[in-house]
Amino acid sequence: MNITSRPIIVAIPLLFAAAAFAQATPAKPKTSAEIVAAAPASAWKVVADEDLLMIDLDGGQRVVIALAPAFAPVHVANIRALVRAGWFAGITVNRVQDNYVVQWGDATEKKPLPAGIVTPTPAEYERPLAGLKLRPLGYRDAYAQTTGHVGFWPVVSDGNAAWLTHCYGMVGVGRGLAPDTGSGAELYAVTGHAPRHLDRNIATVGRVIDGIEALTALPRGTEALGFYKEGTPRPAISRATIAADLPAAQRPHYQLLDSASPAFGEWVTARANRKDDFFIRPAGAVDICNALPPVRKSPV
Amino acid sequence: MNITSRPIIVAIPLLFAAAAFAQATPAKPKTSAEIVAAAPASAWKVVADEDLLMIDLDGGQRVVIALAPAFAPVHVANIRALVRAGWFAGITVNRVQDNYVVQWGDATEKKPLPAGIVTPTPAEYERPLAGLKLRPLGYRDAYAQTTGHVGFWPVVSDGNAAWLTHCYGMVGVGRGLAPDTGSGAELYAVTGHAPRHLDRNIATVGRVIDGIEALTALPRGTEALGFYKEGTPRPAISRATIAADLPAAQRPHYQLLDSASPAFGEWVTARANRKDDFFIRPAGAVDICNALPPVRKSPV
Repeated sequence: MNITSRPIIVAIPLLFAAAAFAQATPAKPKTSAEIVAAAPASAWKVVADEDLLMIDLDGGQRVVIALAPAFAPVHVANIRALVRAGWFAGITVNRVQDNYVVQWGDATEKKPLPAGIVTPTPAEYERPLAGLKLRPLGYRDAYAQTTGHVGFWPVVSDGNAAWLTHCYGMVGVGRGLAPDTGSGAELYAVTGHAPRHLDRNIATVGRVIDGIEALTALPRGTEALGFYKEGTPRPAISRATIAADLPAAQRPHYQLLDSASPAFGEWVTARANRKDDFFIRPAGAVDICNALPPVRKSPV
Repeated sequence: MNITSRPIIVAIPLLFAAAAFAQATPAKPKTSAEIVAAAPASAWKVVADEDLLMIDLDGGQRVVIALAPAFAPVHVANIRALVRAGWFAGITVNRVQDNYVVQWGDATEKKPLPAGIVTPTPAEYERPLAGLKLRPLGYRDAYAQTTGHVGFWPVVSDGNAAWLTHCYGMVGVGRGLAPDTGSGAELYAVTGHAPRHLDRNIATVGRVIDGIEALTALPRGTEALGFYKEGTPRPAISRATIAADLPAAQRPHYQLLDSASPAFGEWVTARANRKDDFFIRPAGAVDICNALPPVRKSPV
């Protein structure tokens, strides 16, 4: 998952040459990938079954989303209710805007919401910082005074409030012009350079932790804002599932590197100071969206 | 799409809806899209025919790249020589790594370089700031003390050196482990959150200004670093052309908003302080990669 921290823009044979060379020189500082590979089990935090949302597309691809009830409890409750009512089955991806978002929902906008959906839904753009254990990233940010992580979530805070920030892969709730018009029935995933200006303007409810290529490789929409032209065949969602609703033996499990672990601190430092054979000049910095906690699938 | 979904994620393409609304309420501050729409001809800077590279894929899609000879003159000269020798015809896209880069070159690594290629090629990771008219962005950056624009290029400087930064759509030169091993025959485009850590580690030679979806919507590679698996059919380049080599009447023309224009300053301010009907809380900031100069195709 953090493959991007490996020596990057080199031709295939040189890649392997680089790997071989690194093995031959164990004295070198560990790369972020090596730190992740060596992180103990205690450094990994599992995504709760109740927070693991799987969206299956008609083509057979699966997009896996970790939900963040600590940041948007009402929206997350709505999303679970929509899943459990089978509401997402048959809805479509309607918008694919390059370097911005992929968005899915009911294109007809007429599909009635099932019982149990709280609407109007509180905006939930932010929550109190109090009660959260924020690990500051430790590097300057272009938008905020403080960025960092809470567990495995990328978070921004102004000292009083805290909110999930719009990094690549983060999932938010589509809404109309009024703040309380987003129920969770229409969702989007960030698929470009972090649109941080959306922070505190939309409820952010989770992160795509597996299968994002099923969204990012879709044909771009040709209409304004990347919406598909009327009549264009749209990728359809065949099913959405919360892992907790599957028999225990059938539940997938995902873990993310816990920002509270010592390994995470090493990883951030290595991300900001890349010293593998490829890098001539380490940046000496990393922004919050280049420090998204690594993900791994786990047997249990 | 109707109003409840249209404004959900505001971006440059919203200009039509926003402009229509603004006409009814002239007192509202202009959106960045309105500023671009109203910018006078003098605010637009044309891409020189000699710097306009068109890459045609077998599928018929065209990727248009503006080259930056002021920042990587030897690499750009190499790229022109490769184009004029027909070298790019038949090479393939070999790497599509989600949220990172799409890279194309000679998968066999055996295709001899034509005459006129300067190799070894100077690293050209940076150049002196002296001689460049840098317009500071005016907002803090996560990686550098100074970011801004030179003409229509996104630039970072440490006060002595200046370099093009790795924003979405920027084009760089693949290389091996040694700094001088990238000729320009292997190129990549950034297709994810800005990998700013690559700055000053790779020569950056241009920006994709049209048709990037022909690269970003490609199937992701399944191997390490997003390389396509051996035997996977690879998107092939049918032809590469420098606009200057076409008859004048057949040359496409592109213009970008010039950072030296008053309109550009208004645009940056509006990008940092979005006030259209959708935004509740403007960010009050914008990072260099969310301030890539707008592009338009022009008749002449």
